[in-house]
Amino acid sequence: MTQAAAPGFVSFVGSGPGDPDLLTLKAVACLQQADAVLFDDLSAGPILSHARSGADLVGVGKRAGRTSPKQTHVSRLLVDYAASGARVVRLKSGDPGIFGRLEEEITALRAAAIDFEIIPGVTTASAAAAAAMIPLTRRLTARRLQFVTGHDIAGVLPQDLNMAALADPQATTVVYMPKRTFPVLAERLFAAGLPQNTPAMLAENVSRPEQNLLRDTMQALTKRLERDVSSAPGLILYGSLADAP
Amino acid sequence: MTQAAAPGFVSFVGSGPGDPDLLTLKAVACLQQADAVLFDDLSAGPILSHARSGADLVGVGKRAGRTSPKQTHVSRLLVDYAASGARVVRLKSGDPGIFGRLEEEITALRAAAIDFEIIPGVTTASAAAAAAMIPLTRRLTARRLQFVTGHDIAGVLPQDLNMAALADPQATTVVYMPKRTFPVLAERLFAAGLPQNTPAMLAENVSRPEQNLLRDTMQALTKRLERDVSSAPGLILYGSLADAP
Repeated sequence: MTQAAAPGFVSFVGSGPGDPDLLTLKAVACLQQADAVLFDDLSAGPILSHARSGADLVGVGKRAGRTSPKQTHVSRLLVDYAASGARVVRLKSGDPGIFGRLEEEITALRAAAIDFEIIPGVTTASAAAAAAMIPLTRRLTARRLQFVTGHDIAGVLPQDLNMAALADPQATTVVYMPKRTFPVLAERLFAAGLPQNTPAMLAENVSRPEQNLLRDTMQALTKRLERDVSSAPGLILYGSLADAP
Repeated sequence: MTQAAAPGFVSFVGSGPGDPDLLTLKAVACLQQADAVLFDDLSAGPILSHARSGADLVGVGKRAGRTSPKQTHVSRLLVDYAASGARVVRLKSGDPGIFGRLEEEITALRAAAIDFEIIPGVTTASAAAAAAMIPLTRRLTARRLQFVTGHDIAGVLPQDLNMAALADPQATTVVYMPKRTFPVLAERLFAAGLPQNTPAMLAENVSRPEQNLLRDTMQALTKRLERDVSSAPGLILYGSLADAP
C-alpha cells in the first residue's frame, strides 16, 4: 500500500453534493493519486470510481457496517494510514468546511505531526438552489445567506441557536440535516416571528438520479415532516427565494 | 457560430474562486461545448483555456473595457447569443447563486423563452477557509455560517443589514466584496455588540498564485483597511474559527 519511508499526507476533499460530475478537477486528481480513500456515506457510489484501482476504499459513514463509527475511530484510521506513509484522501460530502466535522480530524493529524491540505467542494445548498433554478441571494430582499444544522452531537436540535437571526424573513436560510428535528425548529422560528407562510423547499438526494425537490410554505412542509420523514439525505431552504419562479 | 435552426441554451456555470483546478467536471464539459462564453473578470485567465478553440469569449466584467457594463447589457447579450441558436456559457466566479446577480439574467432569459441550467460552483468562502486550513463551522461555538455582501447596487454598504445577526460572535460570518465599506460595517458591528477583538481574516485573490491571507482582530483589520485598501478581490471572514490553528 505504501512506501513506508516517505511521510504520509492527508487531503480532505469535498466530494460535492453527490453527482460525480460536480467533483472538482483537483478532487479527481487527489482521488487518482490516493493509496487510501476514507469516505462518508454520501461520498460513496460513482464518486469512488475516480479512485485508482488498488487503492483501499474505506467506508467510515454511519451506514457503512457499524451503527455509528465514533469520530475518534475515524481520526485514528486517518492517522494510522498516513503514519504508514500512505497518501490518504478523506472524502467528505459537499464542502469539507461546512458541517463536515473537519476540526476533530485536523486536530488529530496535527497531534500526530501529519501534513494535510483541504480541497474545497460544492456545498449541497448551492446544488439544491441550482437544481431548483433559483439563486441563494437577491439584492434588496435576500442580502444574507445563512446555513445551520438541525442536529447537534446528540442528534437533537441544538438549544442555543440564534432564533432571531434564523427567523429573519429577509435572509435565505438553509438547514442541513433538518428532517427529524425540523418541526421543533419551525415551532421556535414561528414563535420568534418567522411568518408561517414563508416559502420553503425540501431538497432530498440533491444532484443524484433520485433527487426530489418539494416546495411549499414552512407551515405545510412542517406538517408533512411531522407525518412522514423519509431517511433520504436532504436539506431545507426557506426565505423569499424559495418561492422564486 | 451556430446552427440557427436549433434553439439556443444558456448554462450558468460557477467557475469557482479562481484556480482552474477548482472547476467542476461539469463546468469543464460545458465550456468545451459552448459556442460563446460570457465571463466576469474573476472568471477570466486560465479558466477560459477550457473553452473550445473558436468559441466567442466575451468579457462582461467591470474591468473588461468599459467602466461598468450595465446589467441590462449583459442580459441582452445573453439573450441575443442564445436566440441565434448558440450554446452559451455564462461564467460566474464562485457559485452563481451566491452574490452572482443571477436573478436578473434568469428573468431576461425567461422573458425570451430561452432554456437554461445552473451548474453550481465552489464558493470563495469555502476556498478561503480551505486555504487557511480552517473549517467554517464548528460544533458548539460556530453552529451558524452566514454570508453577506459589503456593497449594494450603489456601491455602498446596504443600510438594512441585520446587525444583530451579523454581530453574533457564535457565528462564522463571511463578507463578500467587503473592502471599501468594511470600516463602516465594523463600526456598526461593534455598536451592535461584536467584540472588537473578534478574530478575523482578510483573504485576497483566493486560490490564485497571488493569494494573500491576513489574520488579525476585527479592530486591527479595520484600521488597516482605513489606511490602505488594495484593489485585489477578496473577502473577510470573522468569528472564532478565524483564529483556529
